[in-house]
Amino acid sequence: MTDHPPASPRPGGALRCAMIGAGRMGQAHAQVLATVRGVQITWVMDVSEDHARHVAAELGAQASTDLAHVLAQPDVEAVLISTPAGTHADAIEAAARAGKAIFTEKPLAKSLEDAARAVRAVEAAGVPNQVGFQRRYDPAYVDAKRRIDAGELGRLEGFRAVGRDPEPPPTGYLITAGGLMVDMGGHDLDLARFLVGEVTEVRAIGGALVKPELADHGEHDTALALLRFENGALGTLEVGLRTAYGYDIRTEVLGERGRLHIEQDRRPDLTVYDARGVSHDRPRHFSERFPAAYAAEITAFARGVQTGHALTPSVRDALHSLQLALAAQHALVTGETVRVPEFGEEIMNEFPLEGRS
Amino acid sequence: MTDHPPASPRPGGALRCAMIGAGRMGQAHAQVLATVRGVQITWVMDVSEDHARHVAAELGAQASTDLAHVLAQPDVEAVLISTPAGTHADAIEAAARAGKAIFTEKPLAKSLEDAARAVRAVEAAGVPNQVGFQRRYDPAYVDAKRRIDAGELGRLEGFRAVGRDPEPPPTGYLITAGGLMVDMGGHDLDLARFLVGEVTEVRAIGGALVKPELADHGEHDTALALLRFENGALGTLEVGLRTAYGYDIRTEVLGERGRLHIEQDRRPDLTVYDARGVSHDRPRHFSERFPAAYAAEITAFARGVQTGHALTPSVRDALHSLQLALAAQHALVTGETVRVPEFGEEIMNEFPLEGRS
Amino acid sequence: MTDHPPASPRPGGALRCAMIGAGRMGQAHAQVLATVRGVQITWVMDVSEDHARHVAAELGAQASTDLAHVLAQPDVEAVLISTPAGTHADAIEAAARAGKAIFTEKPLAKSLEDAARAVRAVEAAGVPNQVGFQRRYDPAYVDAKRRIDAGELGRLEGFRAVGRDPEPPPTGYLITAGGLMVDMGGHDLDLARFLVGEVTEVRAIGGALVKPELADHGEHDTALALLRFENGALGTLEVGLRTAYGYDIRTEVLGERGRLHIEQDRRPDLTVYDARGVSHDRPRHFSERFPAAYAAEITAFARGVQTGHALTPSVRDALHSLQLALAAQHALVTGETVRVPEFGEEIMNEFPLEGRS
Amino acid sequence: MTDHPPASPRPGGALRCAMIGAGRMGQAHAQVLATVRGVQITWVMDVSEDHARHVAAELGAQASTDLAHVLAQPDVEAVLISTPAGTHADAIEAAARAGKAIFTEKPLAKSLEDAARAVRAVEAAGVPNQVGFQRRYDPAYVDAKRRIDAGELGRLEGFRAVGRDPEPPPTGYLITAGGLMVDMGGHDLDLARFLVGEVTEVRAIGGALVKPELADHGEHDTALALLRFENGALGTLEVGLRTAYGYDIRTEVLGERGRLHIEQDRRPDLTVYDARGVSHDRPRHFSERFPAAYAAEITAFARGVQTGHALTPSVRDALHSLQLALAAQHALVTGETVRVPEFGEEIMNEFPLEGRS
Repeated sequence: MTDHPPASPRPGGALRCAMIGAGRMGQAHAQVLATVRGVQITWVMDVSEDHARHVAAELGAQASTDLAHVLAQPDVEAVLISTPAGTHADAIEAAARAGKAIFTEKPLAKSLEDAARAVRAVEAAGVPNQVGFQRRYDPAYVDAKRRIDAGELGRLEGFRAVGRDPEPPPTGYLITAGGLMVDMGGHDLDLARFLVGEVTEVRAIGGALVKPELADHGEHDTALALLRFENGALGTLEVGLRTAYGYDIRTEVLGERGRLHIEQDRRPDLTVYDARGVSHDRPRHFSERFPAAYAAEITAFARGVQTGHALTPSVRDALHSLQLALAAQHALVTGETVRVPEFGEEIMNEFPLEGRS
Repeated sequence: MTDHPPASPRPGGALRCAMIGAGRMGQAHAQVLATVRGVQITWVMDVSEDHARHVAAELGAQASTDLAHVLAQPDVEAVLISTPAGTHADAIEAAARAGKAIFTEKPLAKSLEDAARAVRAVEAAGVPNQVGFQRRYDPAYVDAKRRIDAGELGRLEGFRAVGRDPEPPPTGYLITAGGLMVDMGGHDLDLARFLVGEVTEVRAIGGALVKPELADHGEHDTALALLRFENGALGTLEVGLRTAYGYDIRTEVLGERGRLHIEQDRRPDLTVYDARGVSHDRPRHFSERFPAAYAAEITAFARGVQTGHALTPSVRDALHSLQLALAAQHALVTGETVRVPEFGEEIMNEFPLEGRS
Repeated sequence: MTDHPPASPRPGGALRCAMIGAGRMGQAHAQVLATVRGVQITWVMDVSEDHARHVAAELGAQASTDLAHVLAQPDVEAVLISTPAGTHADAIEAAARAGKAIFTEKPLAKSLEDAARAVRAVEAAGVPNQVGFQRRYDPAYVDAKRRIDAGELGRLEGFRAVGRDPEPPPTGYLITAGGLMVDMGGHDLDLARFLVGEVTEVRAIGGALVKPELADHGEHDTALALLRFENGALGTLEVGLRTAYGYDIRTEVLGERGRLHIEQDRRPDLTVYDARGVSHDRPRHFSERFPAAYAAEITAFARGVQTGHALTPSVRDALHSLQLALAAQHALVTGETVRVPEFGEEIMNEFPLEGRS
Repeated sequence: MTDHPPASPRPGGALRCAMIGAGRMGQAHAQVLATVRGVQITWVMDVSEDHARHVAAELGAQASTDLAHVLAQPDVEAVLISTPAGTHADAIEAAARAGKAIFTEKPLAKSLEDAARAVRAVEAAGVPNQVGFQRRYDPAYVDAKRRIDAGELGRLEGFRAVGRDPEPPPTGYLITAGGLMVDMGGHDLDLARFLVGEVTEVRAIGGALVKPELADHGEHDTALALLRFENGALGTLEVGLRTAYGYDIRTEVLGERGRLHIEQDRRPDLTVYDARGVSHDRPRHFSERFPAAYAAEITAFARGVQTGHALTPSVRDALHSLQLALAAQHALVTGETVRVPEFGEEIMNEFPLEGRS
């Protein structure tokens, strides 16, 4: 990571941002943005004028359906991209060319080619950039990372992740989202890299258990993978799109000296004892699990842009997470064992990660 | 509870408030206020010019050491009082006379006489008023109250509360705070009333286990009480000023159909397995346990003032909580069994609670 | 504690015991005895011939309604007394005179006078003796005691106990059981002494919330107490006879360096996630909570008798627990603050505990 | 399952058994057998005279190094086989020919051929038979199975198992144990069949992370698998031979209506609060996790033999679990995706499970 020169630092002021994308995810983010000091949304852009106006009104911003117009505004120092995955690369490229600092939701793109194009544009422009893997900013993951880096686990030997949404999004969304291993597994696979290290090999199986019609599109609502890491660790990943009991996100890292288990499976402050025994309510939706993480990643972005400190994860880092996610998706679709470093090797050779041999 | 006419409603705008008191508690609140939309601190008043200026600078407000000056400002719609307990009543009275909406930290005062004077002033002025029993706004307590009111526990039969700070405040603070049952137990006793009902009888014992020098001042750092409620329920209360393990707040309500247990005794999202077994970090300080509650109570106050909706708990309600806390303190100091309705009866007769026979 | 000479050691063989009392408690114990190696029940005595025969048949023993007859048998080395509380002292006295080793359920008696008579007889006969405070043998309490004795908590400052049965026994039993503080609280008060030290002062309140008819007999189904210990620690006790959610036994010891919390509030091995959230089954009855403790205390008794090692708690120790329980009952009935060392002082002076000044 | 005619029923008496194998596992079982009423060990056989004599002395039995001699004794109604895995089949065959009821530890054998030979012998002799998958008798698994069969989860969609020993057995044991998926994973794979249904496809990866020298023998100390079930469910399995924190056994079943999570990750009755936060001790060894299960399976065996009720799991059922475990081991060693029904198909065709199409 290199430090960026500060982009138009305004001492004491909030970073003036344009929100690009005001659909499902954009609206979820708007709620968080409304509580974050340090960020001021000056413009909201969406291809739907309705969405743009609606969110702009909430945030006290101006609305537009024209990306170029928004990027040309002097009161836009940075963009926050939460459009559909297939359009991320174009938006990133345009923003980079306009010299804006960039925060984009994951994934970078639906293909390595598109993602590489976006990374090239960002790095050519030298603009500050960060990708929305918010779990890296969640207090529990932050603490786990700190403990791992401090050697509390000793040598790392295992990784286990579960990511289950309570219910599937519309089929129309799923068949354009880039595959379950990218759309859903992308977060867990980024964490695998963040917490344990690079993955070299992946196998996967899956099914359409909740929405059988997905099978007609070659898509899945349930997928499981085996992961082999460069450092010898071994791992499993499971993602799914239905539980009766809410949002189920678990991550474990096993080392020779112990295990860290990251999971919030119950409301921690109220326990009910009755004729049925003991019970707890639990998180039902991602907005209940990661509000602090969303606020923290955006706050870090705004501060980093204003102070010139390095942002993380960068688009280059996220390109590697995308490579892994696409490799896992390929393993899922083909049934093959995929060697990750060889997946898209010709593209990836252009973007080595520092410190990786 | 009656609804107040809205005080200077400014549609869409934040409620402009003066912070009265910028010491230890005031500074803790300033951190929360900095994150609450809907409240704008325009003035900060403290007898210490340093404190006033320091907090004012943080919040982008003006500073003053002169309460009357602040109350005369047109951009002060409401006051947030967090001065030492012994000065609450005077500040409330002055603010009421100035026609300001009032949010004050508990307790109302250190004596029933002073508190009664404050309530009279507030009710005479007809200004919106709320007392800072923030736990009533904590999500777990809110949910517990909802369940109790919905009859999930059936008839209420028991109450148990523990309130332990990790370490005692300075002795100088403790000997002027009004007694441990008021300063520390006040929160738990207010919850007893909020969740179960009025208390009729209290016995108590205590000691100076952590700071033996408190005994010279007739004060305690540990106190336990037995409570008998009007509805037949029976309860215990324990408060203390030291634990090796952090902030320990527990509340239980027992009914014929079950038990609600409110406690956050561990970090809910990260579990550590190592040679010692299984461990969790836990809340160390009140600021880690109740940030959502502080934000919620202030937000409710600001909205209530602007919309004219009733605020809760009112100063009159808080007067009854003070009566109970002072009765418990009296029991602690004298060793007597105190009948709560007879404690300060002559004063309390002037302030019956609606719906209480 | 002094070591006894072994009573009829039979290397390798089980201790041949007579069960005295085959009613509710005796039958519960018979189930445990059936699983304990090291104890052979040779005789079962009960005033009800039916009960005696029934339990004897289960255990492969002979039945009798005549205590003297049973005590005269050569194949009776020890007696296990689980008759109603009011008859314990007579049974103990008779067994002591017959030179039998004695294990008796608590309490020793319903009055200090009767209990003292039993202790005198036992000590005059010099027979091995142990009282059934089984929690002292429960693995969690054993571990807590070890940690406390090792100084892990530092100076002891607090004690909290809850003991709640899921439902009350018949009223007929309750009005002859010696009072709730003896029958139910006896266990918790013995633990207070075992874990923290001697209690010097007790206050109590109570009620007949579950069975209002108990009030006519001066009895309670709910009782709460405040305890002051010789070493300065302060504590609370709560006992009750109904919960909707099962058996609720909790003990806490607080020290300057930490807190030990003994409670089994849920089934530890199966968690259910469903539309309601997260739930666990929990212990419903004392037989689900303390089977290991019952087996351990009887095993310790049998081994101690055969090897001559000291037994614990002795009848003398149990006499002090009874003093405390009766003092608490007196506080409950009278509303007075009771100084424990002065309660039955004239009797207790005859039975000082070693090492107690 | 068909019911067997009772083998030498002795009303009221214990089943007289010979223990075959008194090594590591046999000795562990002896401790349980010493507490189980209903079983009397009359003979202990081991190839090591020392082991045989040692365990025989403990159990009050006769010792022998000659299996044929033991099988010829009239006071041997049943055998309990806990020899090394490679000798199970021979011992089963001999016991079956001698007409003895058979309880054998898993696996049936190290190859399907040997196991099939054993099953043929048992079924030809018509003797009662049961295999030691003790988890099927653990209260948590029993309750999970009951809930699943009652439809509480709805359609089954997922399975997850973790099985980790705290430390590896000697390398000499590991290289003769039949492979990690048989020796360690055998329990979890049997549970997969017991709780969810037959597995049709398995993939696996593994390593020698703890004992690198295992790699020279083609063995592993860590292995992960993906499972596809006949009913559409998907699952993961992870087994390993080292944790810093003790014995780690977890099983999850996911269905459309909820999830059952079977795990005992902490001591349930004692919580320690200190400067580090909150901590619990946890199970360190299998003997701390499954004592009730071992006692229950042997008790069920003894009762079933004496009453003629069907025993479960039968050797035929265990043959299917062995097929799955060997298929998983094959997948682990070869890296191939293995279709379970085709693995050893020619042998398995002889042993269809009732009710399986």
